[in-house]
Amino acid sequence: MNMQTDASFYAVIPAGGIGSRLWPLSRASAPKFLHDLTGSGQTLLQDTWDRLEPICGDNIAVVTGSTHASHVTDQLPNLSPTNLFLEPSPRDSTAAIALAAAVLSKRDSDVVIGSFAADHVIHETHKFEIAVKEAIEVAKTGKIVTIGVNPTEPSTAFGYVRTTDSLAGFDSAVQVREFIEKPSINKAKKYFQSSDYLWNAGMFIAPAKLFLEVLAETEPKLAESIDYLAEKVVAGGFDKEAVKTWHALKKVAIDYSVAEPAAKKGLVACVPASFEWHDVGDFAAIAELQSQGRSGNLAVLGKAKVLSDSSSGILVSENDKLIALIGVEDIIVVDTPDALLVTTKQHAQKVKGLVDSLRASGQDELL
Amino acid sequence: MNMQTDASFYAVIPAGGIGSRLWPLSRASAPKFLHDLTGSGQTLLQDTWDRLEPICGDNIAVVTGSTHASHVTDQLPNLSPTNLFLEPSPRDSTAAIALAAAVLSKRDSDVVIGSFAADHVIHETHKFEIAVKEAIEVAKTGKIVTIGVNPTEPSTAFGYVRTTDSLAGFDSAVQVREFIEKPSINKAKKYFQSSDYLWNAGMFIAPAKLFLEVLAETEPKLAESIDYLAEKVVAGGFDKEAVKTWHALKKVAIDYSVAEPAAKKGLVACVPASFEWHDVGDFAAIAELQSQGRSGNLAVLGKAKVLSDSSSGILVSENDKLIALIGVEDIIVVDTPDALLVTTKQHAQKVKGLVDSLRASGQDELL
Repeated sequence: MNMQTDASFYAVIPAGGIGSRLWPLSRASAPKFLHDLTGSGQTLLQDTWDRLEPICGDNIAVVTGSTHASHVTDQLPNLSPTNLFLEPSPRDSTAAIALAAAVLSKRDSDVVIGSFAADHVIHETHKFEIAVKEAIEVAKTGKIVTIGVNPTEPSTAFGYVRTTDSLAGFDSAVQVREFIEKPSINKAKKYFQSSDYLWNAGMFIAPAKLFLEVLAETEPKLAESIDYLAEKVVAGGFDKEAVKTWHALKKVAIDYSVAEPAAKKGLVACVPASFEWHDVGDFAAIAELQSQGRSGNLAVLGKAKVLSDSSSGILVSENDKLIALIGVEDIIVVDTPDALLVTTKQHAQKVKGLVDSLRASGQDELL
Repeated sequence: MNMQTDASFYAVIPAGGIGSRLWPLSRASAPKFLHDLTGSGQTLLQDTWDRLEPICGDNIAVVTGSTHASHVTDQLPNLSPTNLFLEPSPRDSTAAIALAAAVLSKRDSDVVIGSFAADHVIHETHKFEIAVKEAIEVAKTGKIVTIGVNPTEPSTAFGYVRTTDSLAGFDSAVQVREFIEKPSINKAKKYFQSSDYLWNAGMFIAPAKLFLEVLAETEPKLAESIDYLAEKVVAGGFDKEAVKTWHALKKVAIDYSVAEPAAKKGLVACVPASFEWHDVGDFAAIAELQSQGRSGNLAVLGKAKVLSDSSSGILVSENDKLIALIGVEDIIVVDTPDALLVTTKQHAQKVKGLVDSLRASGQDELL
């Protein structure tokens, strides 16, 4: 497991997940990562690319659904066609990241990969850069390295990383004892008081080979299929047989297939970081992010003309029509050509249930 | 002032008023009366016509803004072109009703006219019919007759009619002592307890000649201009000079120019009635009307597909897009192609202020 110090680094962006709680903005045909949810003028995917470019230039691969190929290439002009891996169907994060790891590993057996979600918001990107660079160095010593974000509140919305001893020879890297799923509020408060617990931001940096070795132990059948599929990609792309194999892949999150088993074996390290990190899971989160803690702000995303006496909430519009709000606080209004959502920040999480009932009633054209 | 008993009756529908509190549904180009606000499948104007037709057949005149001519004729196929009087600009109710009175009077000097707003909602139309028929008979004795609605609550939103003695020879007609403007809640409670006070529903039935005689005394200049303008209508329509005269007419409500002065002279009678009557002034009123006191009802006007957990409020939509509501009660959502309103029943009255600020900021295309 000796990694050469000159191993190249590749960022992998698994761009999947519809973002149901951001319906009707986020759709199967245009998921979360294809939207500008921060008012930056760029989509979350473009922001992700721009964050990684200073670290690894154009050594960035994107794994996304076949249906999003044209949107992704439109948004990322510097993405090499050979670094775009298309999923015939969503098979969860292990399949996506493992496919990228396997293809990149066949091109360069010593490659270190880093997986970064396409739909996170990170400010203070210099801190992100420093953390990822250290993580790459730690990974080269034969570790799967996660970036652990210092909690700013006892959140029950994120999983945690429980750390132990510092790793010798590194500025801030520490050993990881275990991954912990989203906790109760009491546990979250305990974690918040301790310095051993960090938010698991879902970023993993590891030698591709090590990643695939762990997977081969925990999910041998899946690992074998991925290896076969990676050969196909290297040979020019999926044929009919490969698509069939892809559709049959086991759906499993990377946390269960690789991160947690590797942590049990002592193979996982963590680089703590204190950059501002958001997963903007629902409209309430976007409203918070937009208002940046300042009160008296109604957040507005899009080109809508707004006439409002509301000092909180969020307005999202895909056209320039006038939106008038009177006497509604903490309101969420999302207007799209075929669907309009009106709810409040308090109920933002329930949007997913609404999408579920649309699906259940067969209104797929609205999903 | 002896009216012949065979005098013909003509209904006049002054179809004016934008209905600012119903923005963005009601617009300068498509005011309240051109919309179906009851879910009846007909507009308020069509409902008004249908209420009057059993009383007077096609003897119905409409006074409306020139810009609404085509909408009105589209909606009222039985309206005779000679009974459509077009206002070059809005000059309040006296000008509108007096013009109709003067033209109809020149055609038939003994005509009795009845003025009925184009944007009221009346249920139990047989009671309305009986009341109007009695009012016509009372009018023929040389009275200006109003229909007084029996109050069902101590409302501060309506003016009141104070009645005194019964008129001999009629089923229910009474003499009117005075008209009272919208009262304080304390006064409204007093009126509600007394049987002498009825809601002024703004309906006036009178010999056209009597109506014009009262006007000639209270507003001689206005009456003279109206007479000149009526000659023009009879001669084929307004010329340039007439339009100029119209624009210069004094703006005054019929209550001040005719009803109140006539009451002081003892010329006003009232036929009490107990039909259900609404002036649907704002979206809260429409919501109330739609839910008919039943709880657990979200009112929906238009073709919108609705997914909602709300049990109160109103949704108005001009298209068939999906409107999803989560956790919002007493909500008002009005979606039109160029403007979206979100407010609550509690704030429904404030919509007028919003329209005022749109006007003040020069956004006339949205009015």
